[in-house]
Amino acid sequence: MKDKIKIPRCDGISDEEFRESILPKREPVIITGLDIGLCKSLWTVDYLSNKIGDKQVKVHVSKDKQMDFIKKNFIYKTISFRSLIKRASEREHEEFFLDKNEVYYLRALGDDPRGRDVSDFKKHYSGISDDIIFPAYFEPSQYFSSVFRIGSSGCQLWTHYDIMDNMLIQVKGRKRVVLFNPQDTQNLYLNGDKSEIIDIDNPDYEKFPKFKNVMFYEGFLEPGDVIFIPALWMHNVISLDFGIAVNVFWKNLDNSFYNQKDPYGNRDLVPAEKALQSLETALKSLKELPKDYSDFYHRRILSRVERSLNEL
Amino acid sequence: MKDKIKIPRCDGISDEEFRESILPKREPVIITGLDIGLCKSLWTVDYLSNKIGDKQVKVHVSKDKQMDFIKKNFIYKTISFRSLIKRASEREHEEFFLDKNEVYYLRALGDDPRGRDVSDFKKHYSGISDDIIFPAYFEPSQYFSSVFRIGSSGCQLWTHYDIMDNMLIQVKGRKRVVLFNPQDTQNLYLNGDKSEIIDIDNPDYEKFPKFKNVMFYEGFLEPGDVIFIPALWMHNVISLDFGIAVNVFWKNLDNSFYNQKDPYGNRDLVPAEKALQSLETALKSLKELPKDYSDFYHRRILSRVERSLNEL
Repeated sequence: MKDKIKIPRCDGISDEEFRESILPKREPVIITGLDIGLCKSLWTVDYLSNKIGDKQVKVHVSKDKQMDFIKKNFIYKTISFRSLIKRASEREHEEFFLDKNEVYYLRALGDDPRGRDVSDFKKHYSGISDDIIFPAYFEPSQYFSSVFRIGSSGCQLWTHYDIMDNMLIQVKGRKRVVLFNPQDTQNLYLNGDKSEIIDIDNPDYEKFPKFKNVMFYEGFLEPGDVIFIPALWMHNVISLDFGIAVNVFWKNLDNSFYNQKDPYGNRDLVPAEKALQSLETALKSLKELPKDYSDFYHRRILSRVERSLNEL
Repeated sequence: MKDKIKIPRCDGISDEEFRESILPKREPVIITGLDIGLCKSLWTVDYLSNKIGDKQVKVHVSKDKQMDFIKKNFIYKTISFRSLIKRASEREHEEFFLDKNEVYYLRALGDDPRGRDVSDFKKHYSGISDDIIFPAYFEPSQYFSSVFRIGSSGCQLWTHYDIMDNMLIQVKGRKRVVLFNPQDTQNLYLNGDKSEIIDIDNPDYEKFPKFKNVMFYEGFLEPGDVIFIPALWMHNVISLDFGIAVNVFWKNLDNSFYNQKDPYGNRDLVPAEKALQSLETALKSLKELPKDYSDFYHRRILSRVERSLNEL
């Protein structure tokens, strides 16, 4: 691993400053001292249990704190919000699915049972929606979704990227966030939008040698901190405590770039998805060739893509 | 540049030895001491002028000895074979098109005026066809074409690859041949089947930094030597003297891999051509994206191709 870059912490950025000085740089920043509303003091286990305890939520349950979306080392369970928040806030469980030390992770969904609607915190958690104030850095027309996230202490989320700009509002607990520059994508062994490297601090360099070239952008979130994660920046998040957060996704490109059938906001941009499909067609064609010819034409394709990249 | 590898010289390889020990290795070899017929002694300027002097041939004419197919630093002229062989064998010309020191290069074509038939030495140069014996290393069914090549002293041919196995029979003059392993394709800045690096001995490393990684396979051909250039091996040829050669192309894959509308035998194999076309579609899609997104998805594509290459 190369040296780490500390994600800058900036105090009380105004809307104007954000739009003029931060957004165009397209680099992550932790914004401190924002007024995020009463949630910071109100959102205790008891308060949330009283307000929204009966709501049924679908949660990730895992024996392993390092969650792996590719290998799926977790199960999904639907439980009451009351049960989730109790279990997520305790280290050892009387009631459990897999293990008394299992961890929980909620990524809120919409109310559509088929999961086809976009997560909208203020709509789906209307009982507590007035407790939190979202930053007004973006235009309302750019708003896409807002996601309630709750996780057990120690819970680590797989490295992935989103195609929209993301403001993560940390309400309770501390988090360590590690971000990777989009230019490091070749060093991250992506499989779709997710990295195959789960343990980023103790990676298997034999399997993932290029990860040695990667630059860590590291930051620590305290309750009340808001981090700006620009679109395409890959990120890995560890909850250092039982944590509650809401993140808000904003479109930073014209609407036509986004797939309209994408409630999670993680499908690749329309022209990118087409490009990746054409590439698969190309790779399928190469499979018809004998190995040495296929090897050669893979390399020809690599050169061609590198040339196109250099011409950008 | 890395160290050079000397292309091995092997004396009088039998058909059996070639098929069992040389062909499967798919590496270049210079074969000496073969019986290539009477051409070695018969093919003087006078003899060839008498035999085929009136035949009209289309030749490359250039002021620059280093011919550049991409930048086209030559012109095509149609002259009599008599005139070609006189001019190609002399250093300074009384009659010339561009310059009294211009160089000439003939790559024989078929007789079809639209250039749509395959070059077949024994058919198109029947007056001298009995003078030369082609090696019998391949099956007659694999035969594709045979090309008469004549060049001025010092004439250097652009680095390129062919998709078929090639036996180059050097009849008159000496040649220096430099070959590059197909695995070096990314270091050669190919544009189609041709390298953009013309002066391989004094390359512009600022423009072509990866060429530093390339391995030269070098050999020198004397009259009577035959070099086996396997398909996909990129090659650069310099005539150290006025030179006469014939090379024979052989298919080493099933017929269905080759484009049936390819008289020169340099169109990419059918599945490869399809793959390269799909790749262009992909790159075109990426052009619709803003620069930073396009950059990111170029890198995603590079990773995907690298993964596919590693899985071969």
